[in-house]
Amino acid sequence: MLFSSLAKFMRIEHEQVEVRTNGKGTYEITDEIQAKIDKCGVRNGTVTVFVQHTSCSVVIMENADPTARHDVEEFFNRLVPEDADYFTHGSEGSDDMPSHIRMVLTRTSETVPIIDGRMQLGTWQGLFLFEHRRAPHRRKVLITVTGE
Amino acid sequence: MLFSSLAKFMRIEHEQVEVRTNGKGTYEITDEIQAKIDKCGVRNGTVTVFVQHTSCSVVIMENADPTARHDVEEFFNRLVPEDADYFTHGSEGSDDMPSHIRMVLTRTSETVPIIDGRMQLGTWQGLFLFEHRRAPHRRKVLITVTGE
Amino acid sequence: MLFSSLAKFMRIEHEQVEVRTNGKGTYEITDEIQAKIDKCGVRNGTVTVFVQHTSCSVVIMENADPTARHDVEEFFNRLVPEDADYFTHGSEGSDDMPSHIRMVLTRTSETVPIIDGRMQLGTWQGLFLFEHRRAPHRRKVLITVTGE
Repeated sequence: MLFSSLAKFMRIEHEQVEVRTNGKGTYEITDEIQAKIDKCGVRNGTVTVFVQHTSCSVVIMENADPTARHDVEEFFNRLVPEDADYFTHGSEGSDDMPSHIRMVLTRTSETVPIIDGRMQLGTWQGLFLFEHRRAPHRRKVLITVTGE
Repeated sequence: MLFSSLAKFMRIEHEQVEVRTNGKGTYEITDEIQAKIDKCGVRNGTVTVFVQHTSCSVVIMENADPTARHDVEEFFNRLVPEDADYFTHGSEGSDDMPSHIRMVLTRTSETVPIIDGRMQLGTWQGLFLFEHRRAPHRRKVLITVTGE
Repeated sequence: MLFSSLAKFMRIEHEQVEVRTNGKGTYEITDEIQAKIDKCGVRNGTVTVFVQHTSCSVVIMENADPTARHDVEEFFNRLVPEDADYFTHGSEGSDDMPSHIRMVLTRTSETVPIIDGRMQLGTWQGLFLFEHRRAPHRRKVLITVTGE
């Protein structure tokens, strides 16, 4: 009896997802993250989704209507212009410095509760990688599942 | 002896709070969150406070002087105007698209350490639901307590 | 055998770091945080870095080139001006109200996965305290390590 009880004790597991991006924009990763949670078998806990970069973000956004994400992207294009005359860091191109600012204004990670094996996202919530660079990139997303 | 030792092992519990909002603004939820931690009985750990929506946020803010929150709200009203001519998503009214942008600029969740059963907020920190819509809403906030 | 197995069970530990700041700007704290993880001895888990203030932030940023952080700081100086005519909260000086807004736009905490005892920051990521006040301050940063 003790043994079966121990089997339900808390544990922590890490998984990795690679996201291929093809320019500025939002890329939904909800299903990939849920698949990693299924693989871990944790039924009750949390997942932390962490991006190992400084020029893209992980953000929960509206996932029903693509026009909402288009407008979010357009807002950030206008808020953080590429040609600000006070920028001193520009060795990697005009979209480099804005990408670091956009990351600071958004998030490097999101943490989502897990109940009955499912991420508890609201009806309209999806998990997105928000790419801030123009060139194609392979982005590393680290997924940490904590629970029982 | 083993049994009593096991009783202190880590666990994870979820609670829910419904927050009724009555228009744009900040609504303090610190006491409701602490009450749920008290109910769980966790003395040492963390709490993650997660809002299941894309048009309101959860943010730790100054809780001593209401003028500070007034100015934060006014800043966001000016940073994300309701009548931007480039918005394409507006089916739910002029405060709809700005609400999604304001959520991306702030936070979907906050994680706070718990020591001796209390959230370790600083002297001036409070937990707030930041409502971005004008109409009254019932907002679902999920609370995950991890610890022993 | 049972005993040695139990020794690997999940635990949660808190540590504190004090960061002395000397005016607006970014102060790297990556090494101090890693040293606290080393002290806890957790090899596999997460660390949450939480700042107990409402006028500075904790943010993961580019740590290779100081010009990138300079430009981030300059962007925030322009986005949140000190002399906005609609501010009503100003009892502590002209940099007081902007500091609360800058905190809401950035983060109160960051959570980073730990594998093999090391924070899994990407090549260019560093953990920074982002000070928003001009006067020198002693900032309290709470570090919560969860894992085995």
